[in-house]
Amino acid sequence: MPHRIALIPGDGIGVSVTDAAMAVAHKAAPGLLQTQTFAWSCETYLETGRMMPEDGIDTLRGFDAIFLGAVGWPAKVPDAVSLHGLLLPIRKAFVQYTNIRPHRLLPGVQGPLRKDGFDILCIRENTEGEYSGAGGRVHQGTGDEVAVETAIFTRAGVERILRFGFEQAMGRRKKLASVTKSNAQKYSMVFWDEVTRDLAAEFPQVEVSHYHVDAIAARMVMAPESLDVVVASNLFGDILTDLGAAIQGGLGFAASANIDPTRKGPSMFEPVHGSAPDIAHLGIANPIAAIWSLVMMLEHLGEGPAAARIMAAVEATTAKGIGTVPGQDTTDQITAAILSALEA
Amino acid sequence: MPHRIALIPGDGIGVSVTDAAMAVAHKAAPGLLQTQTFAWSCETYLETGRMMPEDGIDTLRGFDAIFLGAVGWPAKVPDAVSLHGLLLPIRKAFVQYTNIRPHRLLPGVQGPLRKDGFDILCIRENTEGEYSGAGGRVHQGTGDEVAVETAIFTRAGVERILRFGFEQAMGRRKKLASVTKSNAQKYSMVFWDEVTRDLAAEFPQVEVSHYHVDAIAARMVMAPESLDVVVASNLFGDILTDLGAAIQGGLGFAASANIDPTRKGPSMFEPVHGSAPDIAHLGIANPIAAIWSLVMMLEHLGEGPAAARIMAAVEATTAKGIGTVPGQDTTDQITAAILSALEA
Ligand SMILES: CC(C)[C@H](C(=O)O)[C@@H](O)C(=O)O
Ligand SMILES: CC(C)[C@H](C(=O)O)[C@@H](O)C(=O)O
Repeated sequence: MPHRIALIPGDGIGVSVTDAAMAVAHKAAPGLLQTQTFAWSCETYLETGRMMPEDGIDTLRGFDAIFLGAVGWPAKVPDAVSLHGLLLPIRKAFVQYTNIRPHRLLPGVQGPLRKDGFDILCIRENTEGEYSGAGGRVHQGTGDEVAVETAIFTRAGVERILRFGFEQAMGRRKKLASVTKSNAQKYSMVFWDEVTRDLAAEFPQVEVSHYHVDAIAARMVMAPESLDVVVASNLFGDILTDLGAAIQGGLGFAASANIDPTRKGPSMFEPVHGSAPDIAHLGIANPIAAIWSLVMMLEHLGEGPAAARIMAAVEATTAKGIGTVPGQDTTDQITAAILSALEA
Repeated sequence: MPHRIALIPGDGIGVSVTDAAMAVAHKAAPGLLQTQTFAWSCETYLETGRMMPEDGIDTLRGFDAIFLGAVGWPAKVPDAVSLHGLLLPIRKAFVQYTNIRPHRLLPGVQGPLRKDGFDILCIRENTEGEYSGAGGRVHQGTGDEVAVETAIFTRAGVERILRFGFEQAMGRRKKLASVTKSNAQKYSMVFWDEVTRDLAAEFPQVEVSHYHVDAIAARMVMAPESLDVVVASNLFGDILTDLGAAIQGGLGFAASANIDPTRKGPSMFEPVHGSAPDIAHLGIANPIAAIWSLVMMLEHLGEGPAAARIMAAVEATTAKGIGTVPGQDTTDQITAAILSALEA
């Protein structure tokens, strides 16, 4: 039985990297994925006033997974509208509370750091915290405006993401870094620290470190090899994973999975990069982040062998220096090289 | 007339780096600073239940500036207590709304990045935003806890920090990066973007870029040379300046000034690093961050020539490779080298 995949190419380079990923999927495992494409995007918004139809979430519910390119076109639609109209509601509606982002250098890629031997798995909370969307403004336009934004953390929300992190650590080097800013944010982050301590007692084999977000950001640059699994809130995870993308050579290599480990609804797979509308017409978007996200999707769907075949083809390609230098090879060239590596 | 300086060495390595900085000040400009030391620290807290006396803020008010080593001893006093009992209240009480942190490589320092030609001035909002201290918790201990933390941004607070940033940019390369996360935080950060746009109209010569915090974190690692003045909120500035410290070779080189540009009360100068109580007894803390902070204090006090003399001595020292590799030279060795460079 093929897996039913909802494809949302989105805006800008989202479209070309989704095409590339699907070409690779088709070649590596013909017939394994049965895709249906939803052209939801900023264009849709300009035509209909909505990023996706009112029953969009219900439509997606029937799929085994969602593959997203990238959404947003700030010159036409404010990000706060486009992202709150599609990406963020999908993460929340399907309780994709785990955002997983692997950070390591692919063979042949020279990162910006002098150091190169690191392998970090960032686990980012994906449904609450600083992205709760709670807040407001008063005195609009008077010159005395006040804006507030409230981060909301629940016991269940914090516990499940940390538990997932501990479980991942058990399957890796058994080190977990819990990220807070509890020296400044004394409600939310002190709470997070407490939940970490409670869970640590359940996983005595895992070595737990508590980092402040500023300190771990510095550590990712100074001593990335010292980190294994990093668990962070929605905002901190967002920042640290862009930093992770940077140290792995750039957003062209940064893959992500938005997972509901309970599998009640579909999970969503997407490159970390945005839609980059300014460069979309140049045809130089690196499809590797999207293809690596496809690999994560196949693993999630239980298709380990197909996932491994594709990852091997990606690594064979970068090892030859193809797709390793931003802007040097076109999307089509990189995709063609991966397709031909799949034949080897 | 000497400048009256309140010295708060604090905890751990705060004490030794403050000693080092004062030895340098004394040598470079004997009699220029008249210091009074306040032994406020976690020790004080354990004895008295307070990090500083009840009238601590009033006592400090009479000084021309405050020089702080570092505060905190998490094994003995929770950070949320020690920092909210001293560092953060001082920043707020004296409306030190500008936290200035320069990020460039000193001569002879090899940073973690392959790139080395960058010169970034981070301007961090220091009195409100994500550090407002507003929040609470319910259902404590029931397993159903909810913790909330509210960021509060005022028009006046955002405007004054951005204005300061624009003014700094005018005296530098005329580029300003404004940092938000307005694609996810639609109240606070959309507001910040609006204020940035309003102010940009007043400074048409300054080239303004809007970055999301995740994107600029990546940029600081991938293309730091593209940044000039970076203006960010309290939390984002905190994270980006630790990252700035990392790319400049580590916290041993990261200086900071907490300034009230209106000069109604004393400003405070401190290295970005913490108290590092675990390594305090080793005598290997790098005093350069503190000494560079002293340089910023002298500049603020209008003592440009003394500041320049000290900075030249620091640079002559690092150019010889002294103090450039973490843990290689002791605090005393580095200080002695700077003192002798002052004689040259
Ligand atoms: C586009 C934005 C809302 C999103 C986020 O912050 O979650 C992106 O940066 C990401 O990391 O997936
Ligand atoms: C100690 C902590 C509260 C402080 C901050 O976050 O402001 C520190 O990290 C800094 O950057 O000065």
